[in-house]
Amino acid sequence: MSIRQIKETCLYVTDLDRTTQFYHEALGLPVIGRVDGRHVFFRAGTSVLLCFIAGKTKEDQELPAHYGSGQLHMAFEVAPADYANWQEKIRAAGLPILHEATWKGGHRSFYFHDPDGHVLEIVEEGMWGG
Amino acid sequence: MSIRQIKETCLYVTDLDRTTQFYHEALGLPVIGRVDGRHVFFRAGTSVLLCFIAGKTKEDQELPAHYGSGQLHMAFEVAPADYANWQEKIRAAGLPILHEATWKGGHRSFYFHDPDGHVLEIVEEGMWGG
Repeated sequence: MSIRQIKETCLYVTDLDRTTQFYHEALGLPVIGRVDGRHVFFRAGTSVLLCFIAGKTKEDQELPAHYGSGQLHMAFEVAPADYANWQEKIRAAGLPILHEATWKGGHRSFYFHDPDGHVLEIVEEGMWGG
Repeated sequence: MSIRQIKETCLYVTDLDRTTQFYHEALGLPVIGRVDGRHVFFRAGTSVLLCFIAGKTKEDQELPAHYGSGQLHMAFEVAPADYANWQEKIRAAGLPILHEATWKGGHRSFYFHDPDGHVLEIVEEGMWGG
């Protein structure tokens, strides 16, 4: 009866091309679905990231309506051996690193914005224990 | 350089006790952190669910500010063998099931609300392929 993981996480965005450029071209996440004017979906390891045009899913009739505004937060997990390379990759994409932290247990993370101002974090595997 | 998973997903809530009653008592997620007036965190398998009092993290000085409103969507993954038991558990908790779906590949999911109206989904492992 245990939950395995959070499989789907959603963000609400304004421009699917810009979102695709960021998550696919800059971060390297595979695109696994797109409906123009409504959504683009990405694979993020064992999880999926669902990016919906803000407001569109509020009108959904068939599926339960959902929506959101603001600058949401989520974190991607990477192997500790890849952490420095991810910092380099983000900097090379011209994205300012907003903050770096070392948490209990010595696990590191850093923060940056997506094009809609959502607050993304890269965390080292091992953080949050298990 | 691959992302392993989305490790942290956030929701913005209004009452930490009510949120704890729901996610911990009703759904069975372990509580892994709480700061009264600010947040309660839950383990959800290999992921963590961070529930922040709406507005509190907008004022953050040390960490990058984030915030959100609306009725956000996220999905928990369970083993196919547990799927029917999860439906029963949700019904037994007095929570209306908003919608049920069978997706490409035959994977099933169902939707229900949390106390803040966030739109939760239980999906069978295997959905979204890999």
